[in-house]
Amino acid sequence: MELLKERLKRDATVIDGRIVKVDNFINHQIDVNLLNEIGKEFKKRFEGIEVTKILTIESSGIAIACIAAQYFNVPVVFAKKHQGTNMDNDVYETEVYSFTKETNYKVRVAKRYISPEDKVLIIDDILARGNALYGLIDLVEQANATPVGMGIVIEKEFQRGRDMLVDKNIPIASLAMIKEIVDGEMIFR
Amino acid sequence: MELLKERLKRDATVIDGRIVKVDNFINHQIDVNLLNEIGKEFKKRFEGIEVTKILTIESSGIAIACIAAQYFNVPVVFAKKHQGTNMDNDVYETEVYSFTKETNYKVRVAKRYISPEDKVLIIDDILARGNALYGLIDLVEQANATPVGMGIVIEKEFQRGRDMLVDKNIPIASLAMIKEIVDGEMIFR
Repeated sequence: MELLKERLKRDATVIDGRIVKVDNFINHQIDVNLLNEIGKEFKKRFEGIEVTKILTIESSGIAIACIAAQYFNVPVVFAKKHQGTNMDNDVYETEVYSFTKETNYKVRVAKRYISPEDKVLIIDDILARGNALYGLIDLVEQANATPVGMGIVIEKEFQRGRDMLVDKNIPIASLAMIKEIVDGEMIFR
Repeated sequence: MELLKERLKRDATVIDGRIVKVDNFINHQIDVNLLNEIGKEFKKRFEGIEVTKILTIESSGIAIACIAAQYFNVPVVFAKKHQGTNMDNDVYETEVYSFTKETNYKVRVAKRYISPEDKVLIIDDILARGNALYGLIDLVEQANATPVGMGIVIEKEFQRGRDMLVDKNIPIASLAMIKEIVDGEMIFR
């Protein structure tokens, strides 16, 4: 997706040769016009695939998932990292390893929001090592629902997260694929 | 807003005579069509008021703010409760008291995302005691920006959060006002 690559070149910051900071337009300040283009692109990439629900993870996936959901006309559910006081006790739960924090954290979804009939499109901002997405697939599988696709805004191919996901045989659409980072420069596929 | 009140009557659950659980359509599963109606209503309520940015707080404000932002055609910034590894160090920070958790937590916004010229519309899902909104106003004031309005989806009047905010003289638009809860039933204004 050219528009997105251009935006990354202009506004993203590379840190430590591996972190791509997009807090200027995706995960702290949010450019809703760009997200609309991203939503349309997801719709195009998953044309003809039946989707009944979009699943994402808090916080940075929520904006992308909600704007995209307008093109699929389905509800969004976001997996929670932080158990609120008034959350259902009846949840699907999975553990995700965070490389940046070097620790496991739990994510959960109330059981009543994913049912076996659901065809779930999983959406997230960044695919790096693949652990968060793997966790989301696990939640969908626990619900006996069908994961029909994964829509990713930015894939950092050099962190090989896709390797962890390919066995699942779920179509992955990454809108900007960063093959590698050389001297702080993103090299796109 | 009639549509919202009807939805609350149908799908919200009252817990302990004071918590209004809306995880079915606002803060866990999200009905994006309803959020679009909410966004349009905010636009109507703040007609004629110049808005350059929408500020909200993670996680439950993000979806509402982003869908609403489409009607104002401005970017969204969300205040962060959890300091990510790659967040700016240069932030405005404020402390918010949580009644449910009986503890203070910090929220922050990178300084570069609110500037003195900004006319900021603050959006959140629920106004209860008012502490989170008060914190968001504080962040806007620290930036020497102008808070031009507060758009709230549900106000629980009986928890008197508005008392904490009126001195600020910022227009508040609450789309559903729950005057009190009697025997587990929401009484709307």
